[in-house]
Amino acid sequence: MCIFCDIANRKMETQIVYEDELVMAFLDHEPINEGHILLIPKKHYLDVEELPKETLHHLMDISQKLVTAIKKEYRPDGYSIMQNGGAFNDIGHYHLHIFPRYSNDGFGWNSSEKQFEHSQNAADAIRDAML
Amino acid sequence: MCIFCDIANRKMETQIVYEDELVMAFLDHEPINEGHILLIPKKHYLDVEELPKETLHHLMDISQKLVTAIKKEYRPDGYSIMQNGGAFNDIGHYHLHIFPRYSNDGFGWNSSEKQFEHSQNAADAIRDAML
Repeated sequence: MCIFCDIANRKMETQIVYEDELVMAFLDHEPINEGHILLIPKKHYLDVEELPKETLHHLMDISQKLVTAIKKEYRPDGYSIMQNGGAFNDIGHYHLHIFPRYSNDGFGWNSSEKQFEHSQNAADAIRDAML
Repeated sequence: MCIFCDIANRKMETQIVYEDELVMAFLDHEPINEGHILLIPKKHYLDVEELPKETLHHLMDISQKLVTAIKKEYRPDGYSIMQNGGAFNDIGHYHLHIFPRYSNDGFGWNSSEKQFEHSQNAADAIRDAML
């Protein structure tokens, strides 16, 4: 049972912005601003590294079109694209948030209170983990 | 004058995690959590729709490797990827934030106080703007 699978399979209604064989875009029901879109692969994946290249690349191609459309329609000061993975994906189905931004929209992130500087060790550790 | 062009051209030192002909990844100097990476195209672009497909796709391929490496190195509860466009790109050079997330990390977003529901009109307007 996955809400986004149900949406992709047209078992649940939503306000669809774009659809093709691989992906679907629809309006978020708890939008940060009007025009807040969720872009999903129709197949069920959780995190970005699980996505086949074809699907991942196509999602990004469509994100370009959606950002262009948002700019045309809303004339915002900017936009944000965000993807939360692992435990922070509240649906459990990969989705990109794409939404217009305004200088007075109150959107912003809360950083942790930890203050620290990165060391070269951290860069080395991640580089090693990529091998 | 662009800080990220200087970093890409090795005119400014930073803690590099990954580099190839098209892209570079390095540690954010104001990290949300340890392992907070910025992934950039070496060429200067502002927003996602300006990126050539080859570069955009390659950035996403590398983001998969970076998320995998972050998971391996930090064992976080999840991760987030965020890209701020237009006026909300404080550097003016396209960059993806990629960082590990923890359930107690204090990171979260402030929504605007506007409460509203999306109408079908908004979906139709964006769809029309994509044509």
